[in-house]
Amino acid sequence: MSYLRKNIVDMAGYVPGFQPPDEAEWVKLNTNENPYPPSPKVIEAIRQATGDDLRKYPDAACREGRKAAAELYGYPVDWVIMANGSDELLNNLIRACAGEGEEIAFLHPSYSYYATLAQVQGATVKIYPLTEDCEIVGFPARYPGKLFFLTSPNAPLGLNWSPDEVAALADRCDGLLVVDEAYADFAGSNCLELVKTKPNVIVTRTLSKSYSLAGMRLGLAIARPDIIAALDKIRDHYNLDRLAQVALVAALGDQEYFGECVARICATRDWFRHELTRFGYTVLPSSANYLFASSPDRNGQRIYDALYQRKVLVRYFSDPVLAHGVRISIGTREEMESTLSVLKEIG
Amino acid sequence: MSYLRKNIVDMAGYVPGFQPPDEAEWVKLNTNENPYPPSPKVIEAIRQATGDDLRKYPDAACREGRKAAAELYGYPVDWVIMANGSDELLNNLIRACAGEGEEIAFLHPSYSYYATLAQVQGATVKIYPLTEDCEIVGFPARYPGKLFFLTSPNAPLGLNWSPDEVAALADRCDGLLVVDEAYADFAGSNCLELVKTKPNVIVTRTLSKSYSLAGMRLGLAIARPDIIAALDKIRDHYNLDRLAQVALVAALGDQEYFGECVARICATRDWFRHELTRFGYTVLPSSANYLFASSPDRNGQRIYDALYQRKVLVRYFSDPVLAHGVRISIGTREEMESTLSVLKEIG
Repeated sequence: MSYLRKNIVDMAGYVPGFQPPDEAEWVKLNTNENPYPPSPKVIEAIRQATGDDLRKYPDAACREGRKAAAELYGYPVDWVIMANGSDELLNNLIRACAGEGEEIAFLHPSYSYYATLAQVQGATVKIYPLTEDCEIVGFPARYPGKLFFLTSPNAPLGLNWSPDEVAALADRCDGLLVVDEAYADFAGSNCLELVKTKPNVIVTRTLSKSYSLAGMRLGLAIARPDIIAALDKIRDHYNLDRLAQVALVAALGDQEYFGECVARICATRDWFRHELTRFGYTVLPSSANYLFASSPDRNGQRIYDALYQRKVLVRYFSDPVLAHGVRISIGTREEMESTLSVLKEIG
Repeated sequence: MSYLRKNIVDMAGYVPGFQPPDEAEWVKLNTNENPYPPSPKVIEAIRQATGDDLRKYPDAACREGRKAAAELYGYPVDWVIMANGSDELLNNLIRACAGEGEEIAFLHPSYSYYATLAQVQGATVKIYPLTEDCEIVGFPARYPGKLFFLTSPNAPLGLNWSPDEVAALADRCDGLLVVDEAYADFAGSNCLELVKTKPNVIVTRTLSKSYSLAGMRLGLAIARPDIIAALDKIRDHYNLDRLAQVALVAALGDQEYFGECVARICATRDWFRHELTRFGYTVLPSSANYLFASSPDRNGQRIYDALYQRKVLVRYFSDPVLAHGVRISIGTREEMESTLSVLKEIG
């Protein structure tokens, strides 16, 4: 007899992107990390907070962080919640809305972790195919499930939905529409304002990418107060440690640094896409900090392997709808120039 | 229509201990924090790690932390898991073992957060009364539920179970027996070795109290590899940020500093108990870093209020089985001397 629930025994765990132990020797373009360091103000704030006070519990409500995000995004404080990475919010949204045997939905391709989280909960999963033309195949006139996760911009394709398109999708959902905006800071539009007008829309964000803080695990959500209150009941009461809380406030507070980093990444992305296209690659337009690119022979495995041998790490997905390409995170201009040279060498 | 599950709508959230905004003005003995700062090696390690690397994801497996804990506790690495506070482990153990409508059990009084976690899951709860003589009232010859949480030392009473007593309880459980050893570093015995001999015993630990790291959210569990593997599937893949991971390794590595702090707290506790008893209080013997003490008039509310007015913060529980006393965390010798004076003044 096992002590474990059957759904836990049966499931496979999620496998995050490969982190090479000898990181410094690689051009690492596989996990959509920001190539620029966090704001110097973040580093300074963490160092200042690293002292005797670590013996004491953090602020359970993360009040300063909520205040900073509420001001930045133009929402009342009770429409905002903080988390140990936006993954925590995705997890707790399923726990809030979908019981065992109840359904959640997402697109394929998108973030496969939704499926893992549903399996842990014992919820069922409905997957709608997404084409490279941004068409959601078979999405019904009314979707009756508890949650629909829309990754916008999409990972790994980089496609973005406009607020109007998302609003129309929300109107077709009986349950909540979670707009997972992990990459929205690199896009021309986002769905933040939609939370005010559509009662079933929630937006989640992360500081991992656009704020260069993958190492600190910081996420947040904007939603109506009744949803926020439910997420507050479910989360660990001390979900953010003291240093994460000060990092959050300092990062959101330095919009000038943030804006510069994002602008540089977007410029490098657009240049790199142009160059790759000139070289014969098919590259989808991207609203994120990565590109999904396929070589003329549409052999993603070959490109991945050849780059790997030359110490350039990108992301290859063996899934049939993605195997023709690779996802390349946008690094510094210098990193992308050298990656371009290597790709030309590979042919 | 609500978008939320009924069990979430119906439940109340957990209320953590009060953290006064003007902390420095209080003698704060209400949340069992360690009065001594973290090891200087921890502070140094965090400062060293606070730099450009925060832009990159942490090690998902927390390998260095597991290795450090495995060596310290004498277990293979695959018997160890790390968490963002031991609360995360309690949560994930319920998710691993108890589905909706399945039962978990714990004692009253003990850590009421188990009930909150069960409510989030939709699991049912069985509560066995605990007397101040350490008797578990009505615990059956065989307990058929999925999980039994034993807080040892007990919070808030401070009572400790010997490994033999816990082994006998484990033999009566059909499911897992989770020994929540948040305070075991202050006790004369613990159940770590029991994990080797009893297949249904798990031990959870935290660095919040004995390692002075409540502000960093660090917990761990020791269990058989199949249980650890299940918890690994359930946890957020990046549950510990980069700074928490280095703090963990540095803290477990400085056993000399740790041992000194724990010894001082235990000595102060035993001295304080002796003094309080001489003064007419009834004080349970404690294996933790707090005492449960009742005044001759058995009026916990009166003592709490009078201390509060004098800027000494302790914990009062309005629950009928606890309302006769207060829980007093053990601070520095100086803090406890001044608290004793105030208690004498209050009468």
